[in-house]
Amino acid sequence: MSEQAARKQKQPRPAPRRLKGFRDIPAGPILAREQMIRTIREVYERYGFSPLETPALEYVDCLGKFLPEADQPDAGIFAFRDEDDEWVGLRYDLTAPLSRYVAANINELSTPFRRYQVGPVWRMDKPGPGRFREFTQFDFDSVGTASMIADAEACTIMADVLEALGIRRGDYVIRVNNRKVLNGVLERIGGQAGLDYGVQLNVLRTIDKLDKAGLAGVAELLSSGRKDESGAFIPGLGLAAGPIDRIMAYLGSGAPTRAAVLDALAAQVEGSEIGAQGVDELRQIDAFLAAGGYDESRVVFDPTVVRGLEYYTGPVFEGVLTFEISDDDGSPRQFGSVFGGGRYDGLVQRFLGREIPATGGSIGVDRLLAALLHLGAVRSEPAVARVLVTRLDKTMTGDYQRLAARLRAAGINTELYVGTQNIGKQFKYASDTGKIAVVVMGSDEAARGEVSIKDLRLGDELSREIGEDRKRWLEQQPAQLSAPLDGMVEAVRGILGRYSE
Amino acid sequence: MSEQAARKQKQPRPAPRRLKGFRDIPAGPILAREQMIRTIREVYERYGFSPLETPALEYVDCLGKFLPEADQPDAGIFAFRDEDDEWVGLRYDLTAPLSRYVAANINELSTPFRRYQVGPVWRMDKPGPGRFREFTQFDFDSVGTASMIADAEACTIMADVLEALGIRRGDYVIRVNNRKVLNGVLERIGGQAGLDYGVQLNVLRTIDKLDKAGLAGVAELLSSGRKDESGAFIPGLGLAAGPIDRIMAYLGSGAPTRAAVLDALAAQVEGSEIGAQGVDELRQIDAFLAAGGYDESRVVFDPTVVRGLEYYTGPVFEGVLTFEISDDDGSPRQFGSVFGGGRYDGLVQRFLGREIPATGGSIGVDRLLAALLHLGAVRSEPAVARVLVTRLDKTMTGDYQRLAARLRAAGINTELYVGTQNIGKQFKYASDTGKIAVVVMGSDEAARGEVSIKDLRLGDELSREIGEDRKRWLEQQPAQLSAPLDGMVEAVRGILGRYSE
Repeated sequence: MSEQAARKQKQPRPAPRRLKGFRDIPAGPILAREQMIRTIREVYERYGFSPLETPALEYVDCLGKFLPEADQPDAGIFAFRDEDDEWVGLRYDLTAPLSRYVAANINELSTPFRRYQVGPVWRMDKPGPGRFREFTQFDFDSVGTASMIADAEACTIMADVLEALGIRRGDYVIRVNNRKVLNGVLERIGGQAGLDYGVQLNVLRTIDKLDKAGLAGVAELLSSGRKDESGAFIPGLGLAAGPIDRIMAYLGSGAPTRAAVLDALAAQVEGSEIGAQGVDELRQIDAFLAAGGYDESRVVFDPTVVRGLEYYTGPVFEGVLTFEISDDDGSPRQFGSVFGGGRYDGLVQRFLGREIPATGGSIGVDRLLAALLHLGAVRSEPAVARVLVTRLDKTMTGDYQRLAARLRAAGINTELYVGTQNIGKQFKYASDTGKIAVVVMGSDEAARGEVSIKDLRLGDELSREIGEDRKRWLEQQPAQLSAPLDGMVEAVRGILGRYSE
Repeated sequence: MSEQAARKQKQPRPAPRRLKGFRDIPAGPILAREQMIRTIREVYERYGFSPLETPALEYVDCLGKFLPEADQPDAGIFAFRDEDDEWVGLRYDLTAPLSRYVAANINELSTPFRRYQVGPVWRMDKPGPGRFREFTQFDFDSVGTASMIADAEACTIMADVLEALGIRRGDYVIRVNNRKVLNGVLERIGGQAGLDYGVQLNVLRTIDKLDKAGLAGVAELLSSGRKDESGAFIPGLGLAAGPIDRIMAYLGSGAPTRAAVLDALAAQVEGSEIGAQGVDELRQIDAFLAAGGYDESRVVFDPTVVRGLEYYTGPVFEGVLTFEISDDDGSPRQFGSVFGGGRYDGLVQRFLGREIPATGGSIGVDRLLAALLHLGAVRSEPAVARVLVTRLDKTMTGDYQRLAARLRAAGINTELYVGTQNIGKQFKYASDTGKIAVVVMGSDEAARGEVSIKDLRLGDELSREIGEDRKRWLEQQPAQLSAPLDGMVEAVRGILGRYSE
């Protein structure tokens, strides 16, 4: 080792840096996330989805380019050339790899193929507060069916997931639209030849900015452009007043009931075959939702929903949390979208030439977790073990080891102190790492067959402002107690029980 | 969409290829792995480890180069230059990122810092059968303590994990050694100046090939070289006969009891300070293991264990499954190593200049899962939902939806058929996707308030060769039954219960 250390020291010392937009996640949020993922998985499985796992790396041509910001120079995917000089990249979502999987296995798969997948995805977006380049998605998809039942079911799954996680009805809403309706509107604008595909895509991305820019802002972006919050000028699409009026009329055709939205949209797409098809699909979704009792308190139709990803072809939907939080500048705003999805009938077709219709939804796990932590719907515990067995007398390690083993055998997560510091430092360590009960045994106690157990929280609680009742209760609890070896487990359980809800 | 499809079709169609050495994992192994990971996590938490998550991507200089095959041209990590022209790479293990994390947060961390982490790692090794470039590790580590208690505890954790997973005592063994002992042997060979560090590393890597090459093969590789199985000539290290004899004597100093190995090793390193220190550390580990009742049926000392990773500095250990399996050519062999670890006191020092001692272990999740599946210790279920509600009459979708909702509300994972095929194809789909019970309702039955439930497995079971008793039992079960709506849940439970263990 000495030589190795010497060799390593001769090399320049790297700084322990992390890539920008990436993060280390400590125990609290991980444990809360596990709890959340378990609940989501239960709902997905309840609906008959089974897991599938695809790799983190894929050939770039298999992933395709469908990201909302694919036209920005600094946006996109983490890609590089492999040893065979082919472009490979980290997946930017779980849908593109699924379509590659389906295309490769289409002859063996029973359809509708229903799978869920949870895992990290990577995007080389501009990092910012709460915006990371590595984040987790939790998807479910039904591949190989054109039936609107699959889309309608996706909406009920979203609602069921959010309620299973403890989000109350009224604090969320599933908003549904259909890209075909928008296509119908644009078809009417474009006349015989239709609008150029690139222009269509730009209109879609402009509408996708509605949340930030507002209706007036979208109108500006469709015409000559506007200044954004930072004062930078964003050039507009240069559409004429007539087309812009049509789009704004379409965007304004929302209504409180799904039936009313259907009527309004039917009027907006009059004369367009694709538009009428879109409205009819929404009508089928409405029928399914109504039969299942999913009324407008859970699922609404909203013409302003477009979803940014290019690959959607039909119904699109998003789960939005409607309760208010404070923005960075203290102003209240809705929490926003945590769940998105839609139909992507063309994605497998990229590989096979023939259409394999598909639809599904995706949870933004990190955003949803932030919401649940905000609501107190999941707990963020700082540590897993709440008991520390100290090593007061270094010659008695075997004894301490047996104390820890006894607690563990009783199902109590227990840390044996494996450091080299004195007992005072061990107590500080216990406190710093979130322990509640600390077990101490000196040679005298060992001779008597006893251990001491200290309640680390009691002092803290007493010194905080608490209600009279709780204070009296606490004062009756001993902060330190002795127990015979055979009573240790019960005594520790008693102390832990003081603080469990 | 029409335009979008047309545009996409004009682009060349990519083949739905997967990168070599990567794989898609279907439901069965994922569900089994989840079960396994849950058990491992429970043991880690029982010992007081809490989760930490670090990113998939790190700066290459932070990862360092410690892989066993770092000298092979095609080996190494997946790395590329980021937008700032810095080298970044996918992590090749979970230990190097941990050391980066510790170095960056050393002033805030309470030590011993005990964390676990499970996740994929990536290595650009030569892929082969059972050898993948993306695989999962599940690590636990204690950082910031030089105490041998942490190393000894790592060995008991390994044993506890394997037994918690259902591997019987005797079917596994934890093998322990100490790099310092080997260093002591090499010090004696090198004389006053010591062996060159590069030569030491090569000796270590040669010993690491013992499992494949055998003792005689290792001796050849230490001297003039040998032909491997494929007939290729592997050049040797060119050591002289004296040093080779010393190394071979050291490798031959194994014994059935830990006490006997300690004596033998003490003789091998006589006169070397680092060697004596290594033997003393093993002695401390032995004392801890003995006090905990971990005798040689669970943990042995083995001088041939070195572990391939360069960063180990002290005790090294591995969990080996000793039951035999058939090799590719049908010959029996031990299942082998599924768990590895050791002390790496220099890894955080790379960043900080000062030593932060640390030790821990890592499970090769995929290999361990293969072992458990082989032993039948975890179940590989092909699907999560065992019930399909068919859609016989497409006008009755609302009714079918309510049947599915009722089963789900009772906690039964249920798929509603969301495809577009006829009832015959729906039954084939049910069978192909592992369903057991299929619910059917026509308009006549609906009018009577009844459903039909079919047991898909009964026919299969009857036609297979089974015991008389089981056969008679099966013949008394109806393959199809009618139930009133209110009795549907019970009837489905009854059919599922026929096949649950």
